[in-house]
Amino acid sequence: MTRQELIETIRRKQSFLCVGLDTDLKKMPQHLLGDDDAIFNFNKAIIDATLPYTVAYKPNLAFYEAAGINGLVQLKKTMDYLHSLDDKVFTIADAKRGDIGNTSQQYAKAFLDPDGDFNFDSLTVAPYMGEDSVTPFTVYEGKWVILLALTSNKGAFDFQFIESQGEGKKLFQKVLEKSQQWGNKDNMMYVVGATKADMLTDIRTIAPDSFLLVPGVGAQGGSLEEVCKYGMTKECGLLVNSSRGIIYASNGEDFAERAAAEARKLQQQMAEELKKVM
Amino acid sequence: MTRQELIETIRRKQSFLCVGLDTDLKKMPQHLLGDDDAIFNFNKAIIDATLPYTVAYKPNLAFYEAAGINGLVQLKKTMDYLHSLDDKVFTIADAKRGDIGNTSQQYAKAFLDPDGDFNFDSLTVAPYMGEDSVTPFTVYEGKWVILLALTSNKGAFDFQFIESQGEGKKLFQKVLEKSQQWGNKDNMMYVVGATKADMLTDIRTIAPDSFLLVPGVGAQGGSLEEVCKYGMTKECGLLVNSSRGIIYASNGEDFAERAAAEARKLQQQMAEELKKVM
Repeated sequence: MTRQELIETIRRKQSFLCVGLDTDLKKMPQHLLGDDDAIFNFNKAIIDATLPYTVAYKPNLAFYEAAGINGLVQLKKTMDYLHSLDDKVFTIADAKRGDIGNTSQQYAKAFLDPDGDFNFDSLTVAPYMGEDSVTPFTVYEGKWVILLALTSNKGAFDFQFIESQGEGKKLFQKVLEKSQQWGNKDNMMYVVGATKADMLTDIRTIAPDSFLLVPGVGAQGGSLEEVCKYGMTKECGLLVNSSRGIIYASNGEDFAERAAAEARKLQQQMAEELKKVM
Repeated sequence: MTRQELIETIRRKQSFLCVGLDTDLKKMPQHLLGDDDAIFNFNKAIIDATLPYTVAYKPNLAFYEAAGINGLVQLKKTMDYLHSLDDKVFTIADAKRGDIGNTSQQYAKAFLDPDGDFNFDSLTVAPYMGEDSVTPFTVYEGKWVILLALTSNKGAFDFQFIESQGEGKKLFQKVLEKSQQWGNKDNMMYVVGATKADMLTDIRTIAPDSFLLVPGVGAQGGSLEEVCKYGMTKECGLLVNSSRGIIYASNGEDFAERAAAEARKLQQQMAEELKKVM
């Protein structure tokens, strides 16, 4: 999905909501268990219920890998289902990959190749290994690399805020700056945690037009209002993710209905925010 | 495999060779193609040929994922085969994972859980997201996290050498220092590229007893002699990886024989180095 198509989807749905599919057999409604396709069945129900309010879905690879080979089969079924919808959405493989050039090429093939098993629109990538670990993800037309800049977790403070000698620039700022030369606003986004919303003004001076994928609203405590105040652009420029707050809103028979209600609540707040800019 | 078992294996085989299974359908001998099990058949032939000279095998996840779901089935078959051997070897999932705590827990389950599909001894992890992204990998008994410190690629210079304000410590040094509190020499190793062997003296002052996984000898140009000179400890403390130099020594019918010859050549150099310390 191109940048223009993404912006049009946001405008049409009045939403920049990304639903995180962190699908965990232990947390899903127990009446779905006992079927090899439990993960897919859960995802399908969540997608059907939340689709009117959602522009992006983000399966978290760890949860599928933890379910073994069948977990990956469930992911493929989920992706096939998303691709079959008339209402096209943006898809994110939340995989945090990144390795030397020839290996990143293989990861790009695994997740972004239109002829591959998954055919995602984008993939999250960790920047530690630098340029040749990132650029292989920028070569597929209409596909995206989403680079970790400032993450939402406590461990973000361990290295991401280290200031560079002389310049006084934080590591995440260096990542944002350097990577601007590796891609552009049409093929590169950044992960910026909602729990670090006060950093968004600063991030927007380095990456004024880039889309930001913002996790951490909801279960992790970030505020949607603050994220929009400091991070929104005239083209929106944000995909705000909620995972647990939506998909585990209930673990009873009403789980899909409750997920829809949570997604709708966020979408309505988002519509208000969008009115201010586009 | 515990530290003591690993050291005993190194002593017994007079080798600290890790063979990287970067198995690529495009590079493997063409007479193996046309079978769904081509990847496993190739791996099995390489393992059988190189086992006398090898203490560790390191499948590179990217190559299996690039082959889709069947690629993961091939990885499972490879792991099942390694587990079935009387001659026990150390296994490394070269996966470069790492995410917020609840997600890293799932990656740990996927790769290290004895009841999972793969049951690796260890997993490579990227440090960008800090403590809570790393510690979930240290909880399985006798299993290891192998943290990226200083990588072998060109992109390593983008961020890993950034010096911290005031302290003048490089990012990879900070990673080594901080992570000493997250694990210990019995459950944490570090990746240090052979192409940066001159940094090993410095690394040994921070992590004197930790095992180091050293890629970059061979195709990437690193020197085994230099790695040993600056990085070897009295318990060896090194796993030196070669991937392409061994597994693609030939792509003809003699591929396994040639792989064995390359592995043996490295093992003999390693035996000489080991004589100096243990």
